Amino acid sequence: MKDAPAIILVRPQMGENIGAAARAMLNFGLTDLRIVAPRDGWPNRAAIDMSAGALEIIPEVKVFETLADAVKDLHFLFATTARPRDMVKPVYTPAAAIEKILANSPSLREGAGRGFTEPDHNASTLNPHPTLPLRGRDFRAGFVFGPERSGLENDDVARCHAILTMKTNPDFSSINIAASVMVICYEWLARQSDNIVSTPTNASFPAAHEKLEELLVRLEADLDKSGFFRAPDQKPTMVRNIRNLFTRTGMTDQEVRTFHGMLSSLTGKNKI
Amino acid sequence: MKDAPAIILVRPQMGENIGAAARAMLNFGLTDLRIVAPRDGWPNRAAIDMSAGALEIIPEVKVFETLADAVKDLHFLFATTARPRDMVKPVYTPAAAIEKILANSPSLREGAGRGFTEPDHNASTLNPHPTLPLRGRDFRAGFVFGPERSGLENDDVARCHAILTMKTNPDFSSINIAASVMVICYEWLARQSDNIVSTPTNASFPAAHEKLEELLVRLEADLDKSGFFRAPDQKPTMVRNIRNLFTRTGMTDQEVRTFHGMLSSLTGKNKI
Repeated sequence: MKDAPAIILVRPQMGENIGAAARAMLNFGLTDLRIVAPRDGWPNRAAIDMSAGALEIIPEVKVFETLADAVKDLHFLFATTARPRDMVKPVYTPAAAIEKILANSPSLREGAGRGFTEPDHNASTLNPHPTLPLRGRDFRAGFVFGPERSGLENDDVARCHAILTMKTNPDFSSINIAASVMVICYEWLARQSDNIVSTPTNASFPAAHEKLEELLVRLEADLDKSGFFRAPDQKPTMVRNIRNLFTRTGMTDQEVRTFHGMLSSLTGKNKI
Repeated sequence: MKDAPAIILVRPQMGENIGAAARAMLNFGLTDLRIVAPRDGWPNRAAIDMSAGALEIIPEVKVFETLADAVKDLHFLFATTARPRDMVKPVYTPAAAIEKILANSPSLREGAGRGFTEPDHNASTLNPHPTLPLRGRDFRAGFVFGPERSGLENDDVARCHAILTMKTNPDFSSINIAASVMVICYEWLARQSDNIVSTPTNASFPAAHEKLEELLVRLEADLDKSGFFRAPDQKPTMVRNIRNLFTRTGMTDQEVRTFHGMLSSLTGKNKI
């Protein structure tokens, strides 16, 4: 995805972490991995093994000598850091960072089907939305991660536009670098759609009310016959409670049929 | 944090993944790790090494033989699964799942400083907010993860109330188990801020899993006795379908009791 952010690992130590980061990236559709001065050189067998195939799919990983070289084409850099730094910079959560990127990526908004209309091609001079990048320019952001042991140096952080941090347990805040990459990538894809709680459509269509009603009437009759309602004055309440339970479930046709079968069986109608 | 969800790893294979999961949990303040039938036994040296100290800090990890044993005290279970399953269950994103848990955790809402006042201790009888769970009861949720290679079995999924899945790259969707745990734990802490929109639930407090399990075991036995399972080869599927129906409902303690009464009655045990 051309608007997807780049992940830049600065002086990473463990190949395993590079591989796990690559896997997490590809899981969520990110493919722009850049490595600055990896301790053990590149390519790295441990990284390839740990990537579960991602490093064979991702377009050639780019390796640079300095962070400056690695980020030349990017427009906005987030420095990931656990420790607070005495720097005057905006601080973003992963969620806020991704929202910022999406807000600057009109093509993603089009993709989301929110009715973003084709702009006039002269809009670059008229630009009615000065906060948006001009059409034809891709806003590219990057997330910069430091070495596992020490994190980013202050000079690296100073090169970035903002700080990215996440709320953690103050007594145990050292997050694995690949796990941090995972969170960024997860937010990248998760926030590109509405988080709808859905029910799967396969065979999940609820029964029409009359089917449920038939079942409940039959259940009540079976319960009556079997002596369930011993206190007649409490019967209406009990019936209502049972109804609440069954209507809440959203039973499917198949489940209604199964329940009829269960009742036949339990009341002895299956006995031969 | 007493309301924090439990993480349940079912038949995990690699100790390294257990350790990485434990580290991710503690990074975000989760400490209730439960392991069902780990392939390499427990304790596990690789897990301890990979946890970066987390397994020395987390209260004793609990090891169980079956998933049923592991979740007895939990009220709501999310089955994490990458593949779609033909089961009638609500599907949650990590974000939506965490919102559901927070909506059921009044103590967290108090913690958020919204001026939730100390309720009268007689509130259980007067309950001025019938949509809130009663004070003193902790709503405990669990996230259930399957083995690395195969994921959860259908019978494990059937035991859970809902499915949790995340949007991924369809061409590379296999997420490392510890990375999935990381996302859940990240969302858990990230969403506990003052700007959470709380959505009071209309459902009453759900029964602990062991109550539901008792009921389902008894139902299965009653159905067996009454000749319900006429085709033995179809029994596992039928049992799973019945389980799906009942777990989806979120039955209350009272409803479980009512159902026991209905079964006693239907099977003739009430006859005088």
